[in-house]
Amino acid sequence: MQTVSKKEMQLVQGGNVTTPQGFFAGGLHCGIRKTKLDLGWLYSVVPATTAGVYTTNVFQAAPLLVTQESISNNNKIQAILVNSGVANACTGEQGLTDAYEMRRVFAEEMNISELDAAIASTGLIGVPLPIDKIKAGISRIHIDENTDASKFEQAILTTDTCVKNAAVEFEVGGKKVTIGGAAKGSGMIHPNMATMLSFVTTDAAVKEQDLADALKDITNQSFNMITVDGDTSTNDMVLVMANGKANNETLTKESHDWPVFVNGLKKVCQILAKKIARDGEGATKLIEVQVNGAATDVAARAISKAIISSNLVKAAIYGADPNWGRIVTAIGYSGQQVNPNNVKVAIGSITVVDNGLPLSFDEEKAKDYLSNETINIYVDLKQGNTTATGWGCDLSYDYVKINASYRT
Amino acid sequence: MQTVSKKEMQLVQGGNVTTPQGFFAGGLHCGIRKTKLDLGWLYSVVPATTAGVYTTNVFQAAPLLVTQESISNNNKIQAILVNSGVANACTGEQGLTDAYEMRRVFAEEMNISELDAAIASTGLIGVPLPIDKIKAGISRIHIDENTDASKFEQAILTTDTCVKNAAVEFEVGGKKVTIGGAAKGSGMIHPNMATMLSFVTTDAAVKEQDLADALKDITNQSFNMITVDGDTSTNDMVLVMANGKANNETLTKESHDWPVFVNGLKKVCQILAKKIARDGEGATKLIEVQVNGAATDVAARAISKAIISSNLVKAAIYGADPNWGRIVTAIGYSGQQVNPNNVKVAIGSITVVDNGLPLSFDEEKAKDYLSNETINIYVDLKQGNTTATGWGCDLSYDYVKINASYRT
Repeated sequence: MQTVSKKEMQLVQGGNVTTPQGFFAGGLHCGIRKTKLDLGWLYSVVPATTAGVYTTNVFQAAPLLVTQESISNNNKIQAILVNSGVANACTGEQGLTDAYEMRRVFAEEMNISELDAAIASTGLIGVPLPIDKIKAGISRIHIDENTDASKFEQAILTTDTCVKNAAVEFEVGGKKVTIGGAAKGSGMIHPNMATMLSFVTTDAAVKEQDLADALKDITNQSFNMITVDGDTSTNDMVLVMANGKANNETLTKESHDWPVFVNGLKKVCQILAKKIARDGEGATKLIEVQVNGAATDVAARAISKAIISSNLVKAAIYGADPNWGRIVTAIGYSGQQVNPNNVKVAIGSITVVDNGLPLSFDEEKAKDYLSNETINIYVDLKQGNTTATGWGCDLSYDYVKINASYRT
Repeated sequence: MQTVSKKEMQLVQGGNVTTPQGFFAGGLHCGIRKTKLDLGWLYSVVPATTAGVYTTNVFQAAPLLVTQESISNNNKIQAILVNSGVANACTGEQGLTDAYEMRRVFAEEMNISELDAAIASTGLIGVPLPIDKIKAGISRIHIDENTDASKFEQAILTTDTCVKNAAVEFEVGGKKVTIGGAAKGSGMIHPNMATMLSFVTTDAAVKEQDLADALKDITNQSFNMITVDGDTSTNDMVLVMANGKANNETLTKESHDWPVFVNGLKKVCQILAKKIARDGEGATKLIEVQVNGAATDVAARAISKAIISSNLVKAAIYGADPNWGRIVTAIGYSGQQVNPNNVKVAIGSITVVDNGLPLSFDEEKAKDYLSNETINIYVDLKQGNTTATGWGCDLSYDYVKINASYRT
């Protein structure tokens, strides 16, 4: 028996979606994209209790509808297939037919029930899914010890510049449990789910409704707190699969170690969210905005989002300009009740505004700080005890370059 | 007696805030900015019925508080002083003291009551108002036939690249009436008033409450329907002064020609709003988004704003890329009830989506169209009869350049 003396959560260096027991993943090139991998798959040796959250965009893409159908069947999924390059969004009846066909052929290849298969797509909107290429690709999937999670991580990317993964381990009820994850997302990233896909795996056994509740809550503290450009896409999805291979007693909200599990899940989701924000199109810096002293959770989150969403703040940080006036302005138009005469703003350790008034500070020191790759902005509203953190990135020439010529 | 046979509203070529009878305007350099004009004034020969709308930002700058006090006295203003370079926002008690002093000295120089004077400021936030320079500047104001409205237009600018003016004339109750306007605004421009100042003059006599109601309504169809970057500033203000020098019977909502007057006021405000959008920081194109067939006014406006606010749409138009997927995506996350299967989208005369599905179109023709300086996007939701139009600009390298180094 594997004994774990430590109770503390640990990051697993190099960990990924297959770090938890009983998961395999891989990726291949099926020809949707020119040369990059474009078809990724994730497989659990047994059907896993699965929860999902989905885009709020009314133009929800076909694969999301199909995946929701699968999950709603019995809250179990055994395998996920993801293609990049084409989003299968705004593709009408044909898109839905293609999505069903993609699920059917994949399930057949994996030898599982159709309703135990999930699918996801990301890429161009309004282009028919190249279903024949995908079917040919599916026939080349082999699950064995040589499968490679890094290929899955690559196959789900679009304009991302790097793969995004994370894993943590900890102990619940005397059993070692691992949570791993992979994500993609670079443009169309904004609170309420964006062109963002995230797949989280765990070998913990978790009660289905409690897993769903935890995911929803954690999404609001991770994926829904990042922004790249304010655009919320048609294809966003976060899935978490819990296959129980850790042999722990099934976790529920009543479990003694429930907070430990939730903390681990939050950690993986936040790491992935930050990696997405940092890899925002054209980004050179990660911006982390912590709002403290808010009267309500809604206010803390809205103000954090207003700041990380401000083009003017983002451009100033790209230029290493400590232009706190733009931060204050964003707080002011967030739509939240704020007492201007209370507000404190710090850029890193440099307090630039207190009680609503500017403080004199060393501009050179501030510029130096803003040349770092991670920029922390702290706001204290002095109205209550609620806090929220959001993540974003700077706005660079390259953002414009990438998005002025995405299709050409 | 001046007789006007035409009833139709006419644009006055080269018209400005002094085109209506009884208004004078000028500008000078008082030393806040390096060399550009930075102090503008506008004067009516008699106190004018005045209405205003102001920023919704909770960090409302000191000059707005002082101006609101003046207007609320008896709804009359005779003269307005505007400085650029420093916004007098986030300047606390001292800022308010400076704003009162600015009004007091200006009123004294113009030989009018303090409560008949309004002030406005635009520029850097959090910097003390250089009140001594402004006072010295005020002492150099001379109202005579040599005053020059173009100097007023220049003195109120910040990062704008051009002056913004408009004038129309028409007939009400047999009298010729003129409406003129000047505006500034380039960054921090977003619905709900931005770093945007607009001053409208008319020689019509108008009942004060009806003028205020008309301005509020028209602002929602003009200045509140433009966006450059989504940021709403601390200093936004629109004032309209009606001095009655046209000798018309005082216009009220009940007047036969009330719609004619409202139409004229709307025209001036929309021309100014479009000029602001076109001169957005780094903009190379004006984007006009018309949403038709909406179920409600709120929906039409929200969807128009979502599209003109989308960085991805703006960058695509900069790159002349007919990426309609981004337009559809923006419609989808606007927060409005939309039936995806109804939606029609046209870029100029090229319908790219209908009934929620992409149509094949000539990409080269679309790219050609998107190389124009004015881009029209039409959306038909096929849900009702409501329409709204919004204006914005493309997102260019220069936007980033300007805003990465505004203060340095």
